[in-house]
Amino acid sequence: MTRPVAAIILAAGKGTRMKSDLHKVLHPIAGRPMLLHLIDSVAALKPERTIVVTGAGREQVEAAVSPLGVLTVVQTEQLGTGHAVHQAEEAIGGFAGDILILYGDVPLVTTATMARMLERLHGADEPATVVLGFRPADPGAYGRVIAKGDRIVKMVEYKDATPEERAETLCNSGLMAVRGEDLFALLALVGNENAAGEFYLPDIVMLAAEDGRSSAVIETDAAEVAGVNSRGELAAVEADWQHHRRIRAMAEGATLIAPETVWFAFDTQIGRDVMIEPNVFFGPGVSIADGAVIHGFSHIEGATIGAKAEVGPFARLRPGAVMGEKSKVGNFVEMKKTVLGAGAKANHLTYLGDAEVGAGANIGAGTITCNYDGYFKYRTIIGDGVFIGSNSALVAPVTIGAGAMVAAGSVITADVEADALAIARGKQEARPGRAKRFREVMAAKKAAAKK
Amino acid sequence: MTRPVAAIILAAGKGTRMKSDLHKVLHPIAGRPMLLHLIDSVAALKPERTIVVTGAGREQVEAAVSPLGVLTVVQTEQLGTGHAVHQAEEAIGGFAGDILILYGDVPLVTTATMARMLERLHGADEPATVVLGFRPADPGAYGRVIAKGDRIVKMVEYKDATPEERAETLCNSGLMAVRGEDLFALLALVGNENAAGEFYLPDIVMLAAEDGRSSAVIETDAAEVAGVNSRGELAAVEADWQHHRRIRAMAEGATLIAPETVWFAFDTQIGRDVMIEPNVFFGPGVSIADGAVIHGFSHIEGATIGAKAEVGPFARLRPGAVMGEKSKVGNFVEMKKTVLGAGAKANHLTYLGDAEVGAGANIGAGTITCNYDGYFKYRTIIGDGVFIGSNSALVAPVTIGAGAMVAAGSVITADVEADALAIARGKQEARPGRAKRFREVMAAKKAAAKK
Amino acid sequence: MTRPVAAIILAAGKGTRMKSDLHKVLHPIAGRPMLLHLIDSVAALKPERTIVVTGAGREQVEAAVSPLGVLTVVQTEQLGTGHAVHQAEEAIGGFAGDILILYGDVPLVTTATMARMLERLHGADEPATVVLGFRPADPGAYGRVIAKGDRIVKMVEYKDATPEERAETLCNSGLMAVRGEDLFALLALVGNENAAGEFYLPDIVMLAAEDGRSSAVIETDAAEVAGVNSRGELAAVEADWQHHRRIRAMAEGATLIAPETVWFAFDTQIGRDVMIEPNVFFGPGVSIADGAVIHGFSHIEGATIGAKAEVGPFARLRPGAVMGEKSKVGNFVEMKKTVLGAGAKANHLTYLGDAEVGAGANIGAGTITCNYDGYFKYRTIIGDGVFIGSNSALVAPVTIGAGAMVAAGSVITADVEADALAIARGKQEARPGRAKRFREVMAAKKAAAKK
Repeated sequence: MTRPVAAIILAAGKGTRMKSDLHKVLHPIAGRPMLLHLIDSVAALKPERTIVVTGAGREQVEAAVSPLGVLTVVQTEQLGTGHAVHQAEEAIGGFAGDILILYGDVPLVTTATMARMLERLHGADEPATVVLGFRPADPGAYGRVIAKGDRIVKMVEYKDATPEERAETLCNSGLMAVRGEDLFALLALVGNENAAGEFYLPDIVMLAAEDGRSSAVIETDAAEVAGVNSRGELAAVEADWQHHRRIRAMAEGATLIAPETVWFAFDTQIGRDVMIEPNVFFGPGVSIADGAVIHGFSHIEGATIGAKAEVGPFARLRPGAVMGEKSKVGNFVEMKKTVLGAGAKANHLTYLGDAEVGAGANIGAGTITCNYDGYFKYRTIIGDGVFIGSNSALVAPVTIGAGAMVAAGSVITADVEADALAIARGKQEARPGRAKRFREVMAAKKAAAKK
Repeated sequence: MTRPVAAIILAAGKGTRMKSDLHKVLHPIAGRPMLLHLIDSVAALKPERTIVVTGAGREQVEAAVSPLGVLTVVQTEQLGTGHAVHQAEEAIGGFAGDILILYGDVPLVTTATMARMLERLHGADEPATVVLGFRPADPGAYGRVIAKGDRIVKMVEYKDATPEERAETLCNSGLMAVRGEDLFALLALVGNENAAGEFYLPDIVMLAAEDGRSSAVIETDAAEVAGVNSRGELAAVEADWQHHRRIRAMAEGATLIAPETVWFAFDTQIGRDVMIEPNVFFGPGVSIADGAVIHGFSHIEGATIGAKAEVGPFARLRPGAVMGEKSKVGNFVEMKKTVLGAGAKANHLTYLGDAEVGAGANIGAGTITCNYDGYFKYRTIIGDGVFIGSNSALVAPVTIGAGAMVAAGSVITADVEADALAIARGKQEARPGRAKRFREVMAAKKAAAKK
Repeated sequence: MTRPVAAIILAAGKGTRMKSDLHKVLHPIAGRPMLLHLIDSVAALKPERTIVVTGAGREQVEAAVSPLGVLTVVQTEQLGTGHAVHQAEEAIGGFAGDILILYGDVPLVTTATMARMLERLHGADEPATVVLGFRPADPGAYGRVIAKGDRIVKMVEYKDATPEERAETLCNSGLMAVRGEDLFALLALVGNENAAGEFYLPDIVMLAAEDGRSSAVIETDAAEVAGVNSRGELAAVEADWQHHRRIRAMAEGATLIAPETVWFAFDTQIGRDVMIEPNVFFGPGVSIADGAVIHGFSHIEGATIGAKAEVGPFARLRPGAVMGEKSKVGNFVEMKKTVLGAGAKANHLTYLGDAEVGAGANIGAGTITCNYDGYFKYRTIIGDGVFIGSNSALVAPVTIGAGAMVAAGSVITADVEADALAIARGKQEARPGRAKRFREVMAAKKAAAKK
């Protein structure tokens, strides 16, 4: 592709059916706002400019896209798709390249499909516009594309279509590719003499035809151009995304016992011979090295999992969790901003926050790093080969030297030197027969209470 | 509807295929016995009387329905549906209204469908009976309704049907609407001259016809009249119920990332912009206010969740859990009969039972309210802004005053006054080199043990 | 079946598409290597010999099957299925019985189907071979079986088939039954004059025909002969296995609220009126007695669950967990090599490892058995009716006598005699106003830090 590319993404719709205070195009799919999925796919084409046309909720959209170098312009009145694209004219300047027109609520269109549209635009017949069509299971009220081969004869809204035209199954997704030199010239000719009084973008196809220039249609799967107008459709698009991601994970060498119960994020990375049991949820920012095992009922985000490490069941890894090779995090264990050394283990009922755990250390059941005093967070440093006895509390900031041991049930408030044993707990006293007397007294009380 | 309404619900079947000690119609759907779903739908019509015809297991059924003011009568012998309805004659007296005949194991019939049946009964042609028909994917051995328009020509059991009759796809659900003035008069004419020697309720249609009176059929979806005769069918009806409930939750403004992994109870209430991650189970008695987030792997029943509160992952809320606005219950936390104040947090590995937690309090990881002594339960009161250090045990009854702090690892047995610091733990001792010596001794033992 | 039976199982394929270091036929289905599922099904026919033909990864396969008395032979070069079967000739000797030819990556073929193949082999027409055919939804590129009735006219590879032959929908699964007296004689005649230069097993059908001997085809469901060549196909076969197992569990009297979210192992045993909530995972070695309730989010392997016992939600039972009648293991509780007596309870946040808990004992929230010192595991013995206060650590080896009590927050290192109360914790001190001063200091620090 030698010509520069720009994208105009329409996102001015109110999204009323979402019933949400969050802008429709910012609802997430696989942990990332749907609009950013689309912008990521555009970005792979290295566009000179990407412009999002917003309406209500512009601030939310602007905050989300401006870190990516994407501009927003505003469409103050909702006067149709043609009018919406027109709003980008100033921002895009006299752009002498190809323009893709996309929709923020049609988020799963791939880079490959965009590239096909651009390629077709430069076919030997030099079409004025390229329309992306699809054939849904039920064409319903979609606008139809009447074509001979891939040359468009007519674009027609469903309500204006004849019975013969309605019998056509090729529908208009709304996505288009047009040269910058043509787009705004054609748009200037679009009128709003129709029932809704709106300016329709597809009209540029027929306007170009009046000028003797043809347009082409290329087809894609209906799933790729699925739109999101409700939470139900959002769930459907999420399901489709997850379905493809699971197939890819398996193809690349991970075992998913029940693929339909594993949820990936947009950026999950998985090695070979990774085994994932049913019911695992990955939030953003996770990478898993070769041979790791993720047991069921695990909730993982922002974590790096080393080779042959073992996670769960019932593990929660939060951002900043880093597990070394062959380390283990077991049931009812939470880890946050913590590095667990190679071969180290935290197998049961433990909270590790803001900690460093050395290689081969063993963190007993019920260990808690007390990392927060209500104002600041503090670090816990545990050396190589340390053994923390069960049910211990480590009050940070605190350092346990390499090879040290902490006796079970201890509350550690001072540093422990290497190879030392630290013990911090009450002495055991016995009160013979006291439990029996307690039972007698309480049983009598209970009997009295029932009267 | 100006005429009074009564319902006769047949529930005398043995339910052998359930292989259960629990009566078939008491097996739950969405956390409520299936018979009660049906009675709830009838109740919306404000019936004068609802009568359940029971057989074996009458006591179980009676115990379940009598709190709702529903009567039971008994059918001692299983002599067919006509005979079963007949058993209700005495209980219903000379009822001068409309009678719906329903089935305890066909639980999802809606109030709207019942109302349609009653409305049709009072159509201009004044049918003697109204039959509820359906068209299953596979009509199989269902009885067929032979009709012209919605007027019934013939009711025929599958085994008695001609090939032409079997080719009809409209089937008899068994549900009917009949005037009280007609029902028992017609039933008195029903005979049992058939292979099974049973009295069939649908015979009243043909008996009315002999008397020159027509009957009408109205249709509904097959799913609505799905019957439950086995645990497999129970699961199918549950799945159908959940499917519709999930769609409704999304339509009303909740995000369900993976709708098929969220289970609602019959009475779950959900606000707008509530976000529910995959794998959440709601038992009965839950309401969720606007903007709350329910992370995955949460198990919630009998709980009230405030606006913008955050739950899970791995949270368990049991009956009596009340979460204030913007409060948080995190991973591996259980809450029972406990009120958590606005903005209060219990983020990790905690059990809060029979407690009150003030606004803005911070409950450290590993905190346990010791609410039970084997005989009685006691309350823990935690004031506003309290900070409970990690791994503490609060032995109830106990009160921690507002603004107080509890040091990590403490066992609190006495009240703590406001703004005080309480500390109750052992002193830390160090034994230098002791861990190293321990390792040497144990390594030697282990080596010896291997020999 | 009076003739002896042997089985030759082909498992020499490289399984490249699995992208795994584990041999393809050792990837598990329902917790058991797929090859062993097949060997189990063969074993029910009491075969004289079972021989697995291996190639790459022979050591892995041999280690898996030799404990079952199954032999392996090696096919050093991949010269086709005929050549692979040939490798078993020496190991099987001059076997005067019937030989089943099976595939390690077609693991779900049932004993019943194998028996049908053998029975057909001894039909009145005495076929030389019996081929197992199937009709897939998409016959695609499978080899076709051209038959009149159940007599085979021709076996043809897809690529060699005429359009008419390709229109046939009966496909060759590859599985065969042949008499030992015939198999190797026919194989000796198979040539490799084809594009791939391979020796094809199905050629023996046509070779027998040239000798005037007929062959028969019997049909089975496509799902039963589904092959596993990728992790995607592995997941599909797992799903099919689970689907059938769930239906059986319900038919036998268990309630599965959401059957599609319960995963069984190959050997799970379930009683009557067992109730299983959504999201339960069973590993190998689990049995559940009548009336038990398994709440959601439970992960269970190697456990024996008594009648009317209650598990979860969020319970993890590991190998050696034995729950007595009406005992309870609640949320965030892990149990390993531990016997829980009748009616005993461990309801919250507990780890029981290497322990015996007496009947009626109550294990408080947050109890930890400290069973490991980094070198050895030790036992904890808890008598009948013991009450362990919350947040206690029991440092094994230790014995708590019957009827004894342990005070909340104790670290128990010495035995407790029967009926005694043991207490081992720090004394509570109060520091009035100290929390308030702490807040003032920290708030100032925080303000300073922000500057």
